[in-house]
Amino acid sequence: MRVNGIPYRTIWLDEDDRTVRIIDQTRLPHAFATVALETAEAAADAIRNMLVRGAPLVGATAAYGMALAARRDPSDQALAAAADMLLATRPTAVNLRWALERMRAILAAEAPAGRAARAYAAAAAICEDDVRTCEAIGRHGLDLFRHRWEEKGRPQRLNILTHCNAGWLATVDWGTALAPIYMAFDAGLPVHVWVDETRPRNQGASLTAWELGGHGVPHTVIADNVGGHLMQHGLVDLCIVGTDRTTARGDVCNKIGTYLKALAAHDNEVPFYVALPHSTIDWTIDDGVADITIEQRDARELTHVTGRTATGEIAEVAIVPAESPAANYAFDVTPARYVTALITERGVCAASREGLASLYSDAA
Amino acid sequence: MRVNGIPYRTIWLDEDDRTVRIIDQTRLPHAFATVALETAEAAADAIRNMLVRGAPLVGATAAYGMALAARRDPSDQALAAAADMLLATRPTAVNLRWALERMRAILAAEAPAGRAARAYAAAAAICEDDVRTCEAIGRHGLDLFRHRWEEKGRPQRLNILTHCNAGWLATVDWGTALAPIYMAFDAGLPVHVWVDETRPRNQGASLTAWELGGHGVPHTVIADNVGGHLMQHGLVDLCIVGTDRTTARGDVCNKIGTYLKALAAHDNEVPFYVALPHSTIDWTIDDGVADITIEQRDARELTHVTGRTATGEIAEVAIVPAESPAANYAFDVTPARYVTALITERGVCAASREGLASLYSDAA
Repeated sequence: MRVNGIPYRTIWLDEDDRTVRIIDQTRLPHAFATVALETAEAAADAIRNMLVRGAPLVGATAAYGMALAARRDPSDQALAAAADMLLATRPTAVNLRWALERMRAILAAEAPAGRAARAYAAAAAICEDDVRTCEAIGRHGLDLFRHRWEEKGRPQRLNILTHCNAGWLATVDWGTALAPIYMAFDAGLPVHVWVDETRPRNQGASLTAWELGGHGVPHTVIADNVGGHLMQHGLVDLCIVGTDRTTARGDVCNKIGTYLKALAAHDNEVPFYVALPHSTIDWTIDDGVADITIEQRDARELTHVTGRTATGEIAEVAIVPAESPAANYAFDVTPARYVTALITERGVCAASREGLASLYSDAA
Repeated sequence: MRVNGIPYRTIWLDEDDRTVRIIDQTRLPHAFATVALETAEAAADAIRNMLVRGAPLVGATAAYGMALAARRDPSDQALAAAADMLLATRPTAVNLRWALERMRAILAAEAPAGRAARAYAAAAAICEDDVRTCEAIGRHGLDLFRHRWEEKGRPQRLNILTHCNAGWLATVDWGTALAPIYMAFDAGLPVHVWVDETRPRNQGASLTAWELGGHGVPHTVIADNVGGHLMQHGLVDLCIVGTDRTTARGDVCNKIGTYLKALAAHDNEVPFYVALPHSTIDWTIDDGVADITIEQRDARELTHVTGRTATGEIAEVAIVPAESPAANYAFDVTPARYVTALITERGVCAASREGLASLYSDAA
């Protein structure tokens, strides 16, 4: 997507075709800076310190981390150590594990002398694959958006509400929930996006607002509390969010607060769409509320807020009494009955076992 | 309620029986400081600059402002000017207007020489009346809480979720939604309060957390996004909030985000109570969603966050890209069908025209 008119991806190779370059997302939206990764250790640091985030981008970064490792030392032992180090950055990230296992399998089949070149090619293929997946989600979502716009009588604004960041910054390009929004904007549909701030980490206010603005998509940042009021007053034509994990029956585990928006959408007959690559589907789980353990993160993410001061510095302030305990649940589960449809790279389906089976009979 | 073990109200007279003293709520939760009001102008400043907030406390402060004016100059002209000045601080505040009209009617019936003493007595009576109202709400709410605790099998924690600040800081003492919580705590019920941060002004994280902590009530601050998840997992036994305006059929206009919590409570069969003095009831309106215009406030309340730095200073940081528009809707309306019961100073009733009529047949 574009940043000030210039097309970017979230990860790419420098002109030397060896150095990996990423955007330092921890500095967004206050500064746009790229960082060069020369070693697997640097790639691990970038993942651990969340310079990159989002399952697809973390996987892509780990894959390139293996390429950087193979360039320095293609021995079995060195590659095993690199893979262990990269996996340890975020041990519960499914996509990270998948990318590392794919890289290791590919490299194991190659003689050491050819491993570096093979690893770069494999990492690039993982990236291209992600871009194609997101593009396909975008195309299927665009059809839905266009249909909704026609159904509403071609309004001057097609108002879309999204929560958290499921944009190109979380993937290699396009994003998942934001892919149809970019495609609709590029196709000339008059989209306007209500961007949930997304407390406590503020990914909406910082990342989603920044990337939509960079591409020129009209948007307005709102507090997470506002969506229900907007829907009561006909100011939201559809909602679209991403998902970290989708159960076999279509329950959706996504950023905390998603469930509340789905309830409001249901109460006001607003379509609530969830965009996902098939890699988020966990076929082993049905009941997301009962069977997904929700991560609790450091309460400091809630009690302290980081932003820029009037003089442009980045500073952190505490907003909760020092004596008050705080809790930070990171995700919630939206039951399938509140999801209007799932938008996948293979098409659109009902949020149900049957719906998913219609697209993924080979996988379920 | 107590602050570090010492009982306080939000407004009182100094030992000279003339100087009015308030808590500077703009400095909470970072500093506890009181401010002396010697003149009506100082009272007006305190209201305008939100050193005091909450409809009952604003009314009480305005009433004492009239007493300060009468002490300096009890002439009709001076009192009319003082009333105009005080009303202009927050011209749409119903309770402010009501308190000023009451004071003017009382003072008009008194000869100038006796007006200062009469005004102090009348302001004190307004305060006492507010305390009695809140105490009555607290007692009726306590009965509900106790019943709920018994119904749940006397759990080790009675988990209560609240949104925004409807506590003693918004009134003269006790509060509305928090009054039953203080009474339950004082009565030995094992209450624990989930405190919604309440973006964008953070009244939960700053004021509710601070006042509960000061009185010793166990509580945990959470992001506004979290309540639905907690309710899905049985971690909320009841919700209780205040209201700025209640329609004749029981729709409730309260801080933005209240509606989302009511939806989640409904979806998870958690009782959702609204505490109110009868002064918030607007008998002229039925359909709150259709007929209440929602105030939009300065977007800066959302885009900038104030807190304390590591060195203890108060600082403001921006959290939204400078180029991104933001919108700040201040309230929303929860339809009566999602309100389990209204808790008033006259007792508990259904959120319906019939329910309110059963308590207020003299007023409706």
